[in-house]
Amino acid sequence: MYNNKTQIDLTNNYFDHLLSDQPYNLYEPIRYILRQKGKKIRFYLTLKACGLFSGDDKKALPVAGAIEIFHNFTLVHDDIMDQAVTRRNQPTVHKKWDINTGILSGDAMVILAYESLLQCPKPLLSAVLSIFTQAAREVCEGQQMDMDFETLPAIQMDQYLMMITKKTAVLMAAGLAMGALCGGANREEADHLYDFGVNLGVSFQIRDDLLDCYGTTRKVGKMHGGDILQGKKTILYIRTWFSLPMNERDEFERLYQSSDPNKIERVMEFFEKVDVQSYVRQKEEEYFDNAMISLNRIDLPKDRKTAIIEYSRQLLGRDH
Amino acid sequence: MYNNKTQIDLTNNYFDHLLSDQPYNLYEPIRYILRQKGKKIRFYLTLKACGLFSGDDKKALPVAGAIEIFHNFTLVHDDIMDQAVTRRNQPTVHKKWDINTGILSGDAMVILAYESLLQCPKPLLSAVLSIFTQAAREVCEGQQMDMDFETLPAIQMDQYLMMITKKTAVLMAAGLAMGALCGGANREEADHLYDFGVNLGVSFQIRDDLLDCYGTTRKVGKMHGGDILQGKKTILYIRTWFSLPMNERDEFERLYQSSDPNKIERVMEFFEKVDVQSYVRQKEEEYFDNAMISLNRIDLPKDRKTAIIEYSRQLLGRDH
Repeated sequence: MYNNKTQIDLTNNYFDHLLSDQPYNLYEPIRYILRQKGKKIRFYLTLKACGLFSGDDKKALPVAGAIEIFHNFTLVHDDIMDQAVTRRNQPTVHKKWDINTGILSGDAMVILAYESLLQCPKPLLSAVLSIFTQAAREVCEGQQMDMDFETLPAIQMDQYLMMITKKTAVLMAAGLAMGALCGGANREEADHLYDFGVNLGVSFQIRDDLLDCYGTTRKVGKMHGGDILQGKKTILYIRTWFSLPMNERDEFERLYQSSDPNKIERVMEFFEKVDVQSYVRQKEEEYFDNAMISLNRIDLPKDRKTAIIEYSRQLLGRDH
Repeated sequence: MYNNKTQIDLTNNYFDHLLSDQPYNLYEPIRYILRQKGKKIRFYLTLKACGLFSGDDKKALPVAGAIEIFHNFTLVHDDIMDQAVTRRNQPTVHKKWDINTGILSGDAMVILAYESLLQCPKPLLSAVLSIFTQAAREVCEGQQMDMDFETLPAIQMDQYLMMITKKTAVLMAAGLAMGALCGGANREEADHLYDFGVNLGVSFQIRDDLLDCYGTTRKVGKMHGGDILQGKKTILYIRTWFSLPMNERDEFERLYQSSDPNKIERVMEFFEKVDVQSYVRQKEEEYFDNAMISLNRIDLPKDRKTAIIEYSRQLLGRDH
């Protein structure tokens, strides 16, 4: 549906058009990451939001491009911060080149995202730039919260939800709201799509946490139980910690931060003890349902919404 | 003239207003670098460009703030890339905190610069954002060129001039052009101020290269001959390399990249042999004169231009 050749050409051509040839060492790493095979979820969601209101979803190319470039910028810089070696089964930018290249090419990507936004029709500029800039700022705040969590012993569930909202969901939401505006939506309709995006994004991230541990089909370039091995504070960890009796929390916490050779199995025993899966699946569903409620608030014929609903269902693995 | 308490309060209040409290670890490093004592040259140049056309130069606060924040972002990331330990006699951000903090706080500063720009009146947004975004992109390109130069043996003078134009001059130029627009200038007047800024910026950078070696009063937080010790390819180095007889270039090049204990003195002997100072001072003057020619093209009473001319002369140490 969204991975066919025409659509891949559409995105690659759009990005090529934005990038220069020189200095080669600045633009080549950007081309490298933007041309990697990926779902480009944010890009297509943004186009589809535009398609809700307009027959021509390409009107949203400047904002879809901006969202996708900004998302990839966050990956380049996050990979440096996390010392990640591979992404999408390829070496990360700072591994293929070096850290300085990763920093500078990432910086240029933020500017390129704005350059893309500036292709929007002038009457939309102020609204589009405000939505984008606020989301971009929140993404940085979410990343900082995520880093801060590493050294905090107990994280409340609402802190975690705030973190993933900022780090992951608002960028999807911003893309959807901007895409809608490009398609001719009014501000209220764009706000509904923003809410749809926040809820979809949170649901998506919760599912990501779940799949890391319980997934059968693995995401490209990620290993099973990787979050547990890294001691990442996911929704599974937080819920389990709070559900355990007081006297077991310390043991669970120590194990989760340890390099115990049977760490994954032992952590998963704790997970099962408190039936964390049921809680997390329910949360995922709750946010997905809220996303649909926001979408329903938009006064459009039902069949206009089919494409974006189907796409969202696919994203969340709800093909049934 | 530009360092009195009222003006320092003006800038600090403006920045405080843009920054949030939380997450503390994201915003505190930004506050730290923005509150350091510095000349805030780009900030005041931008205000003065506005003052040429309007009695109220505070109209340019959003663009002046954006330029200053962006400039400081480049310092934070450049210091990581250069592994610099101190700046303005204080620890650099990544030394006081860590590299991840430096990367992320720097990223947030780019977004904050755009957030500041968005405070401009709507009719100016498109022009202001285009000028800023192009300059921001060129700054990244200039930084990449500077990094590339480190491993290139021979750099042509025009490549060097292109590099400092992008890395240093265009940001000043963008500030001046945007400041002018905020003051009510038309596009042609803004273009003249842009040209003024490019020439002033190049002149300023050439003087910076010269002062590093021949300065009597040292710039805050920099050491005498630091560029030579680091083997930095300044205008002095490039001009000397090309002026030396073929058979001496290799020796000069090796010395310049060496850690010879008498490196500074020995390099300066080469500099004097080809009288590099005369050439460089002449270049500096040439660009300064071109800056004044661009300023003269603006049809305003001479006394309106006094403040910006005086400020520029001070910057270039031309107090006479």
